[in-house]
Amino acid sequence: MQGSDMARLGEGLTWNEFKQLPMSEKVAFFNHEGRPYHTIFPQQFNRAMLDDLCGLATSIRRIAKSRSGVDFLHSLLSHKRAMLYFTQPSSRTFLSFYAACQYLGLKPAEVRDAATSSELKGESGEDTLRTFSSYFDLIIMRSPKQGFAERIAHLLSSTERPIPIINAGSGKDQHPTQALLDIYTLQRSFERTGGIDGRKIMFVGDLLRGRTVRSLSCLLTNYRDVEQFFVTDPRLQMAPEALALLDQAKVKYRLESDFEKFIPKVDAIYMTRIQDEWDQAGEKPVDVSRYSFKPKHLSMLAPKAILMHPLPRRQEIAAECDKDPRAMYWRQARNGMWIRVALIAATFNIDDQIREYYRCNQA
Amino acid sequence: MQGSDMARLGEGLTWNEFKQLPMSEKVAFFNHEGRPYHTIFPQQFNRAMLDDLCGLATSIRRIAKSRSGVDFLHSLLSHKRAMLYFTQPSSRTFLSFYAACQYLGLKPAEVRDAATSSELKGESGEDTLRTFSSYFDLIIMRSPKQGFAERIAHLLSSTERPIPIINAGSGKDQHPTQALLDIYTLQRSFERTGGIDGRKIMFVGDLLRGRTVRSLSCLLTNYRDVEQFFVTDPRLQMAPEALALLDQAKVKYRLESDFEKFIPKVDAIYMTRIQDEWDQAGEKPVDVSRYSFKPKHLSMLAPKAILMHPLPRRQEIAAECDKDPRAMYWRQARNGMWIRVALIAATFNIDDQIREYYRCNQA
Amino acid sequence: MQGSDMARLGEGLTWNEFKQLPMSEKVAFFNHEGRPYHTIFPQQFNRAMLDDLCGLATSIRRIAKSRSGVDFLHSLLSHKRAMLYFTQPSSRTFLSFYAACQYLGLKPAEVRDAATSSELKGESGEDTLRTFSSYFDLIIMRSPKQGFAERIAHLLSSTERPIPIINAGSGKDQHPTQALLDIYTLQRSFERTGGIDGRKIMFVGDLLRGRTVRSLSCLLTNYRDVEQFFVTDPRLQMAPEALALLDQAKVKYRLESDFEKFIPKVDAIYMTRIQDEWDQAGEKPVDVSRYSFKPKHLSMLAPKAILMHPLPRRQEIAAECDKDPRAMYWRQARNGMWIRVALIAATFNIDDQIREYYRCNQA
Repeated sequence: MQGSDMARLGEGLTWNEFKQLPMSEKVAFFNHEGRPYHTIFPQQFNRAMLDDLCGLATSIRRIAKSRSGVDFLHSLLSHKRAMLYFTQPSSRTFLSFYAACQYLGLKPAEVRDAATSSELKGESGEDTLRTFSSYFDLIIMRSPKQGFAERIAHLLSSTERPIPIINAGSGKDQHPTQALLDIYTLQRSFERTGGIDGRKIMFVGDLLRGRTVRSLSCLLTNYRDVEQFFVTDPRLQMAPEALALLDQAKVKYRLESDFEKFIPKVDAIYMTRIQDEWDQAGEKPVDVSRYSFKPKHLSMLAPKAILMHPLPRRQEIAAECDKDPRAMYWRQARNGMWIRVALIAATFNIDDQIREYYRCNQA
Repeated sequence: MQGSDMARLGEGLTWNEFKQLPMSEKVAFFNHEGRPYHTIFPQQFNRAMLDDLCGLATSIRRIAKSRSGVDFLHSLLSHKRAMLYFTQPSSRTFLSFYAACQYLGLKPAEVRDAATSSELKGESGEDTLRTFSSYFDLIIMRSPKQGFAERIAHLLSSTERPIPIINAGSGKDQHPTQALLDIYTLQRSFERTGGIDGRKIMFVGDLLRGRTVRSLSCLLTNYRDVEQFFVTDPRLQMAPEALALLDQAKVKYRLESDFEKFIPKVDAIYMTRIQDEWDQAGEKPVDVSRYSFKPKHLSMLAPKAILMHPLPRRQEIAAECDKDPRAMYWRQARNGMWIRVALIAATFNIDDQIREYYRCNQA
Repeated sequence: MQGSDMARLGEGLTWNEFKQLPMSEKVAFFNHEGRPYHTIFPQQFNRAMLDDLCGLATSIRRIAKSRSGVDFLHSLLSHKRAMLYFTQPSSRTFLSFYAACQYLGLKPAEVRDAATSSELKGESGEDTLRTFSSYFDLIIMRSPKQGFAERIAHLLSSTERPIPIINAGSGKDQHPTQALLDIYTLQRSFERTGGIDGRKIMFVGDLLRGRTVRSLSCLLTNYRDVEQFFVTDPRLQMAPEALALLDQAKVKYRLESDFEKFIPKVDAIYMTRIQDEWDQAGEKPVDVSRYSFKPKHLSMLAPKAILMHPLPRRQEIAAECDKDPRAMYWRQARNGMWIRVALIAATFNIDDQIREYYRCNQA
């Protein structure tokens, strides 16, 4: 049903035509009746979908506390199989998706190294993925090639046996499930105090090159009256096109460089790693020590504020802060698993079944 | 039962004695009451076994269309575990077998890199496989060493706990399950029009070095009145020993070099990749552009003929041909999964159970 | 329950304080009511625990002979997930643990290569493991870093969501489950003739650098009147601290160099591989041919004695000896799987359930 409907995606449109569509038209292809079918961009999630996914993740998390609940979840997709195709190193995202599949009974298989693939024999990446798609019911993929997940979603939609694609990171641009887990962490942290609307959220560190900031900043435009603070060295400040997106959405934001000044003023601080692996040789590195969260900063932070980090971290947050109850980064990782379970459940249209079970068994 | 019977395999025979047996005597060891126990060579499959396997694969494919059917299949071998030991790069065959195991509930484990193994510490390959065999109920193996799967099948058969071996590609010589999937694709394509008997089948490309052609050509000798056309540059033509096998089986074949001339005359075209990774340095490469299937060739092809390719492909078939209904190569990949499910089912003697279920539930 | 109790482990103690505790106090943290919670050192197993584990392994092994028994075992931990984190090459131990998890229904996920991990991005190993711990219920880890498993056990015990750690080899020092499987092999071999107490056990080969000898020698101090013979070239003889441990336990042992002389006098011979990968450049290698078991030695060995090897082997035992019924090394490998199933069962407190099932169904 889903599959055959989605076959429309490629209908009549070549890849070159499709990729030039405006985002809003692409989104109409990727989503299906208010649910994600292919998950490619953060932009394809609107407020209603985000609320649905966060609610679903919480139901799943609570169902999973009992053995009978876990057994129920396992039964849902035990007749399906997923391939995790990760040709860019990533243990964290990989394991999080792997565990998410296991929670739904979805049997996983993996390709984690481009070198084991037929690309060595000169096959195109498109052929490789199309072949693999014939063995599985879902592909979760991370690739160093920008736009590759979108390309494959388009390609498969024009075949006899389309299956959903989830983008687990594609080049430097997109990492939609990271943005979803960040939203879920904010939503959980503020659920008893009015939610995400109206919050002040500060991003610190490598705002230029970190795709997580760009993706989360974009998703936050779905919430009312959120103010975004971008605090970093001017050389690492948000890219103009990311800010243009905020301007267009009429979102309030500030570009700042004095980290300590804003600590007391915000509801959430999102620290990021300086991605110096992209530094040019000979370039003078930015002094990052000014953009790290130290034990002394804990006393400046509001009692109900939270401290986030997408991980991995280096010196951006001192290990001494880990035990503070406002440090959310470890819980963020676990939230990532739950929101991925929710996303896969929505992709396979079993979200209503889960909500029904939750209503009958937990309420 | 099977295991202890098979212990006869090594009885009294050293490896050096065993490997010099004629093929017909080896086959008597590898098969067991009309079923494959160890799957090592294409030659061990006779017409009755091929018909059985193709029929079984089709039953499985249809059973798997319903959730209850998938649940039934999963229950069959859920008490067994398989190891996929792939020390030669291969994602395609690996994933196909992995998915096949999952369909039968057979729990898979994997070794995909020789470097993680004890061979680094100077252990013999025989010791490695014998140790691994103690944890599992089936070994599916691909190795760069010619004859290695046969060697391990012989070795394990003389131990206290023999388990079946499936050869998933062993050196340059053998790839029996690729040949089985090609047969299954031909059988499915022609099942409503009289089957494989009497067909004209053309092989194109690297007939010298591609093991898939050699294996399929050999299996086709089981069918009546099949005529084989080998069309390529004389430098890439079939090896004399492969042709000797056809002569011995009294099979009609032709050695040709004019590709376009024969397109309209055959029922199936089997394109192959030029394996230039084996080229000697300094050797002048063959002009392969004459042996590639282009969009203009579609109109020369008979309406009910089919176009096959074992994949991966490079330029042998233009991507524009992919949507033609006679292009079978994507379906070939999925057929590979089904025939492997059937093969594993036959190996574990659960084929009759599947046929019984099919009779009761589908007919 | 287990988890929250274990949170005491780190309470009040920093890692620097913890790691300096005497072994007896550490053990009190790692064990929990007579069961292992974290498995880190061989020293944490006392006689009662060893007897319990060996008995449990035998029950499991017998239960697993029937389909209904396997189904029972699979149901026990099917709601749990394990991560196998192996950043040091090891197929043997990896697959043995993997199979052990599968026997209990515990769903496995794997990291087998440090290069795929976030360590590349400058993350600390502690952060990596803490993140991964959020997705799983058990971590089985092998690391080249000495003491790393202990470090992680301590770290996780101070978090909100502690999970058990099993050390599958950590640097050059510890490999507790190898020692357990060796004990189980001895126990099985001698169970009808009075058990391990009072046996003469000879260790041969690289006694200086092989961690398996040190670990087994240590565990044997739990048995009454065992005499240990260390037979090798003086340059590869047991390290003084390993002997000090034996002195302290008042265990009888002999340091010898004449291998053949002692063959007839012992109940078990434990051969080991010369670990010449640790040799210094320029060092003159030891002549190891004097410490290898040859076919001629079979007639010197007592009829009820056994021959062991932790594998992988090189020339220490001639392949011609493999068929002798006293050659235990292949069975040792399979024993390793069973004792690991037993260890995981004890870790998750399901051992009593298994004993109960065994009593009701097998006795």
